[in-house]
Amino acid sequence: MLRTHTAGSLRAEHIGQTVTLAGWVDRRRDHGGVAFIDLRDASGIAQVVIRDEEIAHPLRSEFVLRVTGEVSRRPSGNENPNLPSGEIEIVVQDVVVLNESAPLPFQVSSGLAETDPIGEDVRFKHRYLDLRRPAAIAPLQLRSKVYKALRDVLHEREFVEVETPTLTRSTPEGARDFVVPARLHPGSWYALPQSPQLFKQLLMVGGVEKYFQIARCYRDEDFRADRQPEFTQLDIEMSFVEQEDVIEMMEAVIRAMWATIGVEVQTPLPRMTYADAMAKYGSDKPDLRFGLELVEATDYFSETTFRVFQADYVGAVVMPGGASQPRKVLDAWQDWAKQRGARGLAYVLFNEDGTLGGPVAKNLSEAEQAGLAALVRAAPGDCAFFAAGSAKDSRALLGAARVEVGRRLGLLDPEVFAFTWVVDAPMFEPAADAVASGDVAVGAGAWTAVHHAFTGPKPEFEATFDTDPGSALAYAYDIVCNGSELGGGSIRIHREDIQKRVFEVMGLADDVAQEQFGFLLDAFKFGAPPHGGIALGMDRVLQHLSKTESIREVIAFPKTGNGFDPLTAAPAPITAEQRKEAGVDAVEAPEQSEALAPVEA
Amino acid sequence: MLRTHTAGSLRAEHIGQTVTLAGWVDRRRDHGGVAFIDLRDASGIAQVVIRDEEIAHPLRSEFVLRVTGEVSRRPSGNENPNLPSGEIEIVVQDVVVLNESAPLPFQVSSGLAETDPIGEDVRFKHRYLDLRRPAAIAPLQLRSKVYKALRDVLHEREFVEVETPTLTRSTPEGARDFVVPARLHPGSWYALPQSPQLFKQLLMVGGVEKYFQIARCYRDEDFRADRQPEFTQLDIEMSFVEQEDVIEMMEAVIRAMWATIGVEVQTPLPRMTYADAMAKYGSDKPDLRFGLELVEATDYFSETTFRVFQADYVGAVVMPGGASQPRKVLDAWQDWAKQRGARGLAYVLFNEDGTLGGPVAKNLSEAEQAGLAALVRAAPGDCAFFAAGSAKDSRALLGAARVEVGRRLGLLDPEVFAFTWVVDAPMFEPAADAVASGDVAVGAGAWTAVHHAFTGPKPEFEATFDTDPGSALAYAYDIVCNGSELGGGSIRIHREDIQKRVFEVMGLADDVAQEQFGFLLDAFKFGAPPHGGIALGMDRVLQHLSKTESIREVIAFPKTGNGFDPLTAAPAPITAEQRKEAGVDAVEAPEQSEALAPVEA
Repeated sequence: MLRTHTAGSLRAEHIGQTVTLAGWVDRRRDHGGVAFIDLRDASGIAQVVIRDEEIAHPLRSEFVLRVTGEVSRRPSGNENPNLPSGEIEIVVQDVVVLNESAPLPFQVSSGLAETDPIGEDVRFKHRYLDLRRPAAIAPLQLRSKVYKALRDVLHEREFVEVETPTLTRSTPEGARDFVVPARLHPGSWYALPQSPQLFKQLLMVGGVEKYFQIARCYRDEDFRADRQPEFTQLDIEMSFVEQEDVIEMMEAVIRAMWATIGVEVQTPLPRMTYADAMAKYGSDKPDLRFGLELVEATDYFSETTFRVFQADYVGAVVMPGGASQPRKVLDAWQDWAKQRGARGLAYVLFNEDGTLGGPVAKNLSEAEQAGLAALVRAAPGDCAFFAAGSAKDSRALLGAARVEVGRRLGLLDPEVFAFTWVVDAPMFEPAADAVASGDVAVGAGAWTAVHHAFTGPKPEFEATFDTDPGSALAYAYDIVCNGSELGGGSIRIHREDIQKRVFEVMGLADDVAQEQFGFLLDAFKFGAPPHGGIALGMDRVLQHLSKTESIREVIAFPKTGNGFDPLTAAPAPITAEQRKEAGVDAVEAPEQSEALAPVEA
Repeated sequence: MLRTHTAGSLRAEHIGQTVTLAGWVDRRRDHGGVAFIDLRDASGIAQVVIRDEEIAHPLRSEFVLRVTGEVSRRPSGNENPNLPSGEIEIVVQDVVVLNESAPLPFQVSSGLAETDPIGEDVRFKHRYLDLRRPAAIAPLQLRSKVYKALRDVLHEREFVEVETPTLTRSTPEGARDFVVPARLHPGSWYALPQSPQLFKQLLMVGGVEKYFQIARCYRDEDFRADRQPEFTQLDIEMSFVEQEDVIEMMEAVIRAMWATIGVEVQTPLPRMTYADAMAKYGSDKPDLRFGLELVEATDYFSETTFRVFQADYVGAVVMPGGASQPRKVLDAWQDWAKQRGARGLAYVLFNEDGTLGGPVAKNLSEAEQAGLAALVRAAPGDCAFFAAGSAKDSRALLGAARVEVGRRLGLLDPEVFAFTWVVDAPMFEPAADAVASGDVAVGAGAWTAVHHAFTGPKPEFEATFDTDPGSALAYAYDIVCNGSELGGGSIRIHREDIQKRVFEVMGLADDVAQEQFGFLLDAFKFGAPPHGGIALGMDRVLQHLSKTESIREVIAFPKTGNGFDPLTAAPAPITAEQRKEAGVDAVEAPEQSEALAPVEA
């Protein structure tokens, strides 16, 4: 080792010892011809005192030094109580410059960085400097701790960590695949997995019973600020289980992960049905750090003469104290709603004197006005926002308004973690809705799976899910924290006949199903056990745990929104030779794979 | 849970309890109208007794059952001492068929499989059945244990587990990259990493100090029986370290991994120089489970009149007892040598009566014959194989002959693990040699790096490695077990000037180096610390630990030699729409990436 001690580990007990440290010049102060250098390594900082001006002269920020000297007590009054090593300093006998540093594109010293916010672009281009900032590296250190914590739980429960392939077959799963040309099979391509879903189910068929993997997954999606083209998911599957078993296991994992930041999560976690989540929070991932539940007013306005409220659904959400919002702010809410594709956001102000304000109120009958405060549970001084139209769109708007109200009122406390399971989601949704929300509808049918095609129906819908797809509930469960979905799972289909009926509902023709999922259907012929599982988005989990504002902060080398890596400048053109070798332009040869395949289908 | 107990956990202490099990019909025997079913789950087997013929009738191999019954003592004489649950049986009250099974393509019952060897092709096509065989799943279970063991060591030593990107930039590293079209940057491509080499070095520049990752890596190589296009490596990097530190850490990891199979590895492990390995074993990965060192006879034959031995190098390896090989076997050795590209394999038989036999002997002078046994340390009854020519080729041939001798004499004991470090390898080799052995020579120079371009010179060659590249030794170390390389590493270059000089030796022009590795050279400008590391091929390690004959046995879903997945039939053609969307045929737009890049270079 080039050092005897780490800088951050030195204490008064080391006084008198000669030590060798290695690290970076974090900050330098000169005083009376003496250089005081904060020497930084991964463990922290120690103050190094260099009395020889000639030696000290060339040492600048982020030079890498190896210093040898005696640990000494700092002169009285010069202690630094904010530094664990603040009682001591190293009086240097020898300095070796292990490497120099050019002037920095931005300051990395912990003392300076906070006061000088740095743009994300320049930080990520020079991520190797950015990571020297304690705030930047902390989420990576935390990720390592969290992985250890969750693995400890799963190993204790006898789960087997299995690696599944990443050069695999393109299977439609709700997003675009990244594809990889196969040089040895010209015209054929591998796909990078959107998840290990099919492989983990095959492991269950193979009798593994308890599987987990921290798996790299890939989705070629369009720009969304909080997505990365590659992401990491904790992937779990279990045999001979029911929903309760998966939930109990996952809660143990969540307790262990949150314990790494000193938070004791109380379990069992609350649960709510998908129907309740939509009705009360206008979202399938409700933020339960605050109340402000939506109130449905459809019946209340069933006889109304106000045309806007003559709708399939009328609902409201209350903003406490919102009656005092200036007209300009209330107008801005309209813009906010329009940006979300709504026509506007009706509102009623409950004045302190008991009267109703705002443009909607005068359209309501006296009776409607009289009962409104009680209906929506508004107090004097509150504002109620209304939406009317289809239940789906109106609830989505009110749900978003609810979160925006929470944000403006400071109710989104980053120190609070409000978990809930959302269960009993619909099994299918109209394919048109999936496409409208940016997903790929698998199959050519009128319906597509809400979770995915391998999710089983709740037992009570096993007989009817294909004759009445709109009513069937999935045997699925999502875990939600503070309004974001951490993950989800389901009890899977394990019978070939049911899997085929699901494919039929989705309009996946027999031959297409066989072509794309034939190996799964084959596997189901040979004694597939009942099984279920869950997957957690670990980047999202880490974002919560580290309380960072962007998912990019929890990734060692993040890409920007359009999938560009500012550090290596990937992606990049390839050479004509690489292209030729990869067989990109080979005439497609569907027979090729089978010809090379050693086994007949 | 669909069960109260696991089958393999039942013992005499459970007698009298009513239990519910779930698992597969491993075997069924009928006797006097009673069905005896071995019910198998991941924990093992329990015998289930069904007295109702109607219930028992349809139950066939690999049906999935849920059975409830009372744990009973087996009738005296019917105990099975080979089964942990062999004292008891479950007398069934209720049977639910959770799933049926079609007739199997091959038997999976542990009792039957051993007697009926199954072809690899059919096994891997139906891997989900294959894994139900205890021998097939054991390596996966072992991998999980080994990963836990090595992580425990590294976490204990405060290593941080960091995930590096897999959609990254193509950088030549000795093999072909797999490439991925980037839809959002038409004409540009990501590359899948051959290793996280550059990222782990950037993490060191970023001050991480102790990094590890169990990383998926990708190499698009031509068919070799023991390679997979994707493989897993334990990747480690440390700052402020020297060779000794990396070796000490790695030995702790190796001890922990081998402890999972009950083997206590004695450390420190032996070391040998590359030069010694080549001279004594004709290989940079010597199998030290047996001796039979090569003997150099160049000097001995310096005055010989035998033309074949008038060569730059003459050497021999002895096969104890080999003099009794029939002529046919000795001829077969010539074919063996020719298959390896040699012209043949000279041999001398040391007869029991002290005379020499074989076609070479008569070409030797009396004096040469007289001293030969002492020179090569042959006893009466031995055979010595000779090679003459270039030292490199001759040693390679003798090294291979040595291993073949060891194999034929039964010296390759699978229960013995003979480790060695091989150190002080050359830093460079002639580029032509690298190409000849199937590697890609990075750069256009006469020399290319033996390890890789980021390996530092041993300190004593820092000044001269570029003026005399053929003599420079690398600051590198390979870990070898039983003749296979488990992994290797080096102390890296951390200074921009040295890195540039290495690129120059390799003929990597400044602009090409900047284009391909600019981000690393940039990083070295800003205080890169001294650092080094190592990578272990975990598939190879698991093959040793599980004592399996093929690397495919330690991989959950292996591909065949040409990169074909017999299970999912990947790779496969993609649709024209996928191809269009992926931007495969976009006109290459070298400016595109930069135009979209948020940071100016």
